[in-house]
Amino acid sequence: MELIFLGTGAGVPSKERNVTSIVLSLLQEINSVWLFDCGEATQHQILHTSIKPRKINKIFITHLHGDHIFGLPGLLSSRSFQGGNTELTIFGPSGIKKYVETSLKVSSSHLTYPITFVEVNEGVVMEDNEFKVLAKKLDHGIDSYGYRIVEKDKPGELLVNKLKDIGIMPGPIYKQIKNNPQVKLEDGTVINRSDFIGPAKSGRVVSILGDTRYREEHIEFVKYSNVMVHEATFDQEKSALAHEYYHSTTKQAATLAKQGKVKNLILTHISSRYQKEDDTYLLNEAKEIFPDTKIAIDFKKITIDY
Amino acid sequence: MELIFLGTGAGVPSKERNVTSIVLSLLQEINSVWLFDCGEATQHQILHTSIKPRKINKIFITHLHGDHIFGLPGLLSSRSFQGGNTELTIFGPSGIKKYVETSLKVSSSHLTYPITFVEVNEGVVMEDNEFKVLAKKLDHGIDSYGYRIVEKDKPGELLVNKLKDIGIMPGPIYKQIKNNPQVKLEDGTVINRSDFIGPAKSGRVVSILGDTRYREEHIEFVKYSNVMVHEATFDQEKSALAHEYYHSTTKQAATLAKQGKVKNLILTHISSRYQKEDDTYLLNEAKEIFPDTKIAIDFKKITIDY
Ligand SMILES: [Zn+2]
Ligand SMILES: [Zn+2]
Repeated sequence: MELIFLGTGAGVPSKERNVTSIVLSLLQEINSVWLFDCGEATQHQILHTSIKPRKINKIFITHLHGDHIFGLPGLLSSRSFQGGNTELTIFGPSGIKKYVETSLKVSSSHLTYPITFVEVNEGVVMEDNEFKVLAKKLDHGIDSYGYRIVEKDKPGELLVNKLKDIGIMPGPIYKQIKNNPQVKLEDGTVINRSDFIGPAKSGRVVSILGDTRYREEHIEFVKYSNVMVHEATFDQEKSALAHEYYHSTTKQAATLAKQGKVKNLILTHISSRYQKEDDTYLLNEAKEIFPDTKIAIDFKKITIDY
Repeated sequence: MELIFLGTGAGVPSKERNVTSIVLSLLQEINSVWLFDCGEATQHQILHTSIKPRKINKIFITHLHGDHIFGLPGLLSSRSFQGGNTELTIFGPSGIKKYVETSLKVSSSHLTYPITFVEVNEGVVMEDNEFKVLAKKLDHGIDSYGYRIVEKDKPGELLVNKLKDIGIMPGPIYKQIKNNPQVKLEDGTVINRSDFIGPAKSGRVVSILGDTRYREEHIEFVKYSNVMVHEATFDQEKSALAHEYYHSTTKQAATLAKQGKVKNLILTHISSRYQKEDDTYLLNEAKEIFPDTKIAIDFKKITIDY
């Protein structure tokens, strides 16, 4: 489970930061890649990584501003051109379907795979055996969503040495013990699974928020995330500007991280008014409130630890 | 008058060639920049040039395939963000208006300037005192146009030394002579303009063709161009593939250049199957038929001589 930042700028691309797109690589977990937002030239950024467009099977759009969606038609076309033929699901606010379908239709783009659109509301937007994704409406003038990606807990490992100690050697019996609360051996011994299984492994949680003002209502939604990705369009001094344009400052993002008791905060969506050399002071503003903060740059990778 | 190639690839971007966009810089002539096609990440390419998006006041789209239009919404938005407030005209096949308007509307992009759409047909698509642009339908499966940009002839210069020789010294009289076929001086002398004016300067002609198969019908349209920009998606060997996908080969582009008696041919829209090191053999295939050929690479500049 790894985040790869493809674009970390706000509004317009600059030479240093492309517009927003974030990869959540789940290759190890489920052999899939998920994409969060798809600003223009996301596919160009991908050319400089090892990501294969055909492995992307879910795209989550936080909101419909151009710097978050204008790369979508091109990426979808190239995924087709490169032989992608597996279904793709696009989650996003109402309007995303019309945008994508119009773009593909006007350009006579015939894809080699089907797209399913899920126009999201608050609550669970997808759930399977491994993951659950929840959405929450943020505060950005237009509909903008945060996504909370929850990895499901994994049952503990069988305590092999403890079984061996009482003379139960590896074989099909191990699977039986693992899959049933209680197993009766041929000699009549009763094995309670709970005695021979380690602690369950809690799944990881990643919260990726779209553009938004700071709001207390977001605390519960991001609570205990292993990683929270939050916009920090402006530095602390520009909080009035941030409010006016429905964005957040470094300190506001850090405040939410602290209140939400997350493990790590990653700042992204940095205004193009800031230069590379400003990263340190933006980062330090946030660290004063929440020390476990990093600032994203294009192509940065973040491994999500348990 | 200068061409700047922003994207010279076909279909999908590669690390070497972006998808199609060509600048015709008319800064010296009319303080304007015209753009031909606008594939995804055209605005990103512009960041690496001295071109100012607000100077772009006409965009000509050859056809609606994604690799020629998916950069349009982003460029239009950034032009607005960067303070462009002068009118922009977009010429292109029917459908371009719907695509742009849907993209801007869904993304809540409010531009600071008005856009005029001209959905083109064959014939004159614009004309003013300095330039005339004609369009011709090509052969690409969907509507694809070639544009012939004609600079109007400039009247010759006043032959100052010849006037001085007969005693007419510089002053307001020079303007009168230049602007009238005949002028009567105070002393009764009649001055015929034709005797005191140099030869008219023929305007330059640039032909920029969209994706197309080779067709004899195009010869007349490109005739005597100072520069013809033509696609060469494939090498000569792949002429069957070129035909199937409604594209041209190197030799077909060169054949049209020769038949159209153009001065210079620039090959572009090169398939991503070719590597940088293939440029020489692609170029040489064309040169066998038409020696005055160049192959475009991203950021190449071509000055258009008289
Ligand atoms: Zn944004
Ligand atoms: Zn093309």
